[in-house]
Amino acid sequence: MKLVSFDVWNTLLDINVMLDVMAVELSKLMGACIVDVVEGMMLTRERIKRMRAGTQGDPEKALEESQEMLAELLGTDVELVRRAAARATLKVGDEMVLPGAKEALEGVRRKGLKVTVTGNVMFWPGSYTRLLLERFGLMDYIEGTFFADEVLAYKPMPEMFRKPLDAFGVKPEDAIHIGDTYAEDFEGALKAGLWAVWINPEAEEVRRIHERGFEVPGVEGILEVLERIERG
Amino acid sequence: MKLVSFDVWNTLLDINVMLDVMAVELSKLMGACIVDVVEGMMLTRERIKRMRAGTQGDPEKALEESQEMLAELLGTDVELVRRAAARATLKVGDEMVLPGAKEALEGVRRKGLKVTVTGNVMFWPGSYTRLLLERFGLMDYIEGTFFADEVLAYKPMPEMFRKPLDAFGVKPEDAIHIGDTYAEDFEGALKAGLWAVWINPEAEEVRRIHERGFEVPGVEGILEVLERIERG
Repeated sequence: MKLVSFDVWNTLLDINVMLDVMAVELSKLMGACIVDVVEGMMLTRERIKRMRAGTQGDPEKALEESQEMLAELLGTDVELVRRAAARATLKVGDEMVLPGAKEALEGVRRKGLKVTVTGNVMFWPGSYTRLLLERFGLMDYIEGTFFADEVLAYKPMPEMFRKPLDAFGVKPEDAIHIGDTYAEDFEGALKAGLWAVWINPEAEEVRRIHERGFEVPGVEGILEVLERIERG
Repeated sequence: MKLVSFDVWNTLLDINVMLDVMAVELSKLMGACIVDVVEGMMLTRERIKRMRAGTQGDPEKALEESQEMLAELLGTDVELVRRAAARATLKVGDEMVLPGAKEALEGVRRKGLKVTVTGNVMFWPGSYTRLLLERFGLMDYIEGTFFADEVLAYKPMPEMFRKPLDAFGVKPEDAIHIGDTYAEDFEGALKAGLWAVWINPEAEEVRRIHERGFEVPGVEGILEVLERIERG
């Protein structure tokens, strides 16, 4: 193994912390009831996740599309959605860093492997996620960041997984991707020829579930997976 | 007059504050001498400004191109350029807000006109500039933000100036753009059919320099310009 690619949201950072703060800010900017905003965000999120699992939706407009869908559903201006995202990026605290995230990144780096992040975007751009990874000290372990709105592809599209491999000259069979969304992260990585790890919080232990695939209860499970693959 | 479009850098925010902090962060990340980094940034900036004045350069890659040119000139990885931009966005203080900026925005809003910003991007994305405008309280006066990496055009291209007009249903002759770069802001706006104001710090007073154009010593000059146009 030469490269480990991490998903960001709900793998390294807790998306609910971000969504909660963004909902508060958006409801303030709109002068609307927070319950309606939260409901609109959840609905839009589900719709987009479904669209992407089927790789529908224009990869060149993944971010704008999500912001516009949310603005339309809430009957507000897309500019307020963008402002709420900016405010949330400034306000969230490091309680959004998931337990085990730093240990996982550090452990992988200590093994001498390349570390990248490969992330989809929704409601806010990849540049804000990069800023949060920087703010919370995670970027010190990460050598490459690949976000959907910059790559112009999204998971589970194979192009998205190939980008970090091309950047570091690594073959798919020497790379492994870990993430929490089965269709985007696990199936996507396998289809692109990589090894894959699915974070399933309901799993009780690290378990092999595919020729090149594992399920783990949390992100730090990547270290045990790497050891198992090494042992063959 | 119905809409006033403001350039951001060196019109509302001091770009030198941002570039200085970014140079410090980039030199730390690279382990390089700050003088070399500053020189590299200045050189790249001049090159890009020249390219854009002649509308050379791919409008779809304006941001990536500038980050890659800088990384190449400094012999470093583009990821470090992006990280330095993220750190600078987090670290800069409100001394970057230019004198008269808030007064200008507030005065224009008080007149009941639409306020937008229309900005080119270099080294960092428009989303970071939006975040800074939010952080320093300027977004409270701004109803629409149009950044080159989101619009996929840049000043002085007419498409760039037409975007806010289309968004608010305003005719070019009912709009005025103010900025500090003669070719990008002044000539660009005039060519797109708008009124134009050039911020020339060496000017001694507000002066008409074109049928639809003025020069002003600072951004707050927009208020006098608007009064003069009203008076006819």
